Amino acid sequence: MIDEKNQEIHLANRPEGMPSEKDFEFKNTEIPTPNEGDVLIRTLYLSVDPYMRGRMNDTKSYIPPFALNEVIAGGIVAEVVESKSEDFTKGDVVTGNLAWAKYSLANEKAIRKIDPAVAPISTHLGILGMPGLTAYFGLLDIGKPKEGETVVVSGASGAVGSTVGQIAKLKGAKVVGIAGSAEKINYLIDELRFDAAVNYKDENFKENLAAALPNGVDVYYENVGGTVSDEVMKHLNNKSRIPVCGAISAYNLETPDIGPRVQGLLIKNSTLMQGFTIGDYTEDFPIAAKELGEWLASGKLQYEETIVEGFENTIDAFLGLFAGTNLGKQIVKVADPMYAKLS
Amino acid sequence: MIDEKNQEIHLANRPEGMPSEKDFEFKNTEIPTPNEGDVLIRTLYLSVDPYMRGRMNDTKSYIPPFALNEVIAGGIVAEVVESKSEDFTKGDVVTGNLAWAKYSLANEKAIRKIDPAVAPISTHLGILGMPGLTAYFGLLDIGKPKEGETVVVSGASGAVGSTVGQIAKLKGAKVVGIAGSAEKINYLIDELRFDAAVNYKDENFKENLAAALPNGVDVYYENVGGTVSDEVMKHLNNKSRIPVCGAISAYNLETPDIGPRVQGLLIKNSTLMQGFTIGDYTEDFPIAAKELGEWLASGKLQYEETIVEGFENTIDAFLGLFAGTNLGKQIVKVADPMYAKLS
Repeated sequence: MIDEKNQEIHLANRPEGMPSEKDFEFKNTEIPTPNEGDVLIRTLYLSVDPYMRGRMNDTKSYIPPFALNEVIAGGIVAEVVESKSEDFTKGDVVTGNLAWAKYSLANEKAIRKIDPAVAPISTHLGILGMPGLTAYFGLLDIGKPKEGETVVVSGASGAVGSTVGQIAKLKGAKVVGIAGSAEKINYLIDELRFDAAVNYKDENFKENLAAALPNGVDVYYENVGGTVSDEVMKHLNNKSRIPVCGAISAYNLETPDIGPRVQGLLIKNSTLMQGFTIGDYTEDFPIAAKELGEWLASGKLQYEETIVEGFENTIDAFLGLFAGTNLGKQIVKVADPMYAKLS
Repeated sequence: MIDEKNQEIHLANRPEGMPSEKDFEFKNTEIPTPNEGDVLIRTLYLSVDPYMRGRMNDTKSYIPPFALNEVIAGGIVAEVVESKSEDFTKGDVVTGNLAWAKYSLANEKAIRKIDPAVAPISTHLGILGMPGLTAYFGLLDIGKPKEGETVVVSGASGAVGSTVGQIAKLKGAKVVGIAGSAEKINYLIDELRFDAAVNYKDENFKENLAAALPNGVDVYYENVGGTVSDEVMKHLNNKSRIPVCGAISAYNLETPDIGPRVQGLLIKNSTLMQGFTIGDYTEDFPIAAKELGEWLASGKLQYEETIVEGFENTIDAFLGLFAGTNLGKQIVKVADPMYAKLS
């Protein structure tokens, strides 16, 4: 066994508004010993995602809240250190929704083996993982973009948004991205070849958005909510579709999220607005993962990762999501592999 | 020819907020003479509908605005006085979207013959007309209620709402109506056999609504918008559906319609919210009209009409919609037939 101590991140307080370091506790613990059917895993990469903010509140939602003074769980890529399962052996690389910890136990049913030869293992937290699937299902099952239509995506340079825009381009749509910095706008135009990209922090956002939408909006893939969304919705076309994936602008509000009611716009344009989570699509994961993998392998999909080094920087990385410091998928690199062979 | 003068209602001003008599002009005109392909009709019943308020504004929508100083058009049941069409003869009863006038010309393609033997001719402005179709398509195509589910309908005692609730009952759903007077609540419970009905003007509305929804809301058929809608949406179930038909609370607002943004609720519950107008369903009108007619004939559907007598009372009847003075379909009876045989 490795003679290292373990460390876990626990939820110490339910944050009010924007979380801060004091809402989390880095707890030193022993490295646990696996029982029959479990494996001991060592975290290599850890995912921080905006939706996790919701689980820090004590409110009923599509997934239960995190428990106070217990370890937080999220997307993890790890190596198997010790296996009490016939399905896994030491050195396997696995992924699952697992503890924010350097070491943890995982039941054999809670993890899935990944093949390091196919793509960098961190992509299973991004374009080949939950964010990629979220982009895929929301856009294709709800948004249903047709060739020549205009697709607008907010949070466009993030893990989900950048994938949405690229898939929409693959389907022949015109794609307009909304993001919050000149660097992000350049990335969307120069690297991802979006048809237009608009900075919502620019004082002429309203005019710039209108100029980017000469043919209105057929699909609005919603990641941010708030006033950005209000503005996009002024341009909806008849029979437009709005997959509602996220509303990051509202996750840390301490007052109610108030804005124009949407009923009138929805009637006027016969618009469909549909919330979803990837839990609605579990049966179709294999099909989507296969197609995303093929697009990635053939160079039709690109991705960007913002990688923070060190488990101790996890909270900073998480909070950075709300400040928009990430380009593409925000990941924390926890450790280099000791047992896994990555190539 | 009849030696009577004609009268039309013109839009004199674009109303700001709640319309008033001064926004309309009763204009004395000559009875027109039909050209080839036209018929001269004499209005028997005229429909006033909430959606018409939107057409009084100068804003682009799913139907163009009414022109200033021109005659207003809406649902009409009329008799043919003189025909220059091979398809119609004097005494036929017809319906169409026609002038708010005692007499008017209608092109043969703009009207449809109705059979007075099947149901009272006024029902073609209500349960067998646009409101009935609106109820039918919104509920069945978007709401898709399943047996045992809970359907909430606002504006429940109106022409659309009362039909929505009854169709939902026919589909085996539990139906909860929201309306604005004790008389309406009694009507929903005693006559239409809704499972529950809640008065939104009651100071305990919030608690009463919660008590009526022990199993949450699977379908919310939206007719009113505003704070009533905000309250219903707190009870949405997973995979709930919201056909958005109307938002009468907002039609006369002079300030923006502001309230809680819906994105968070839609995501949390994977809820679908879809605006529509019956124009989206023109191809399926015959199927729906047939089924509505069968339900009506077999006593499975009931309807109520509030009939105001006299063309001169049209504006009062229209404004009454926003005060909620109508039970069921609000109609203006303009004249008794002179040429048509009704039975």
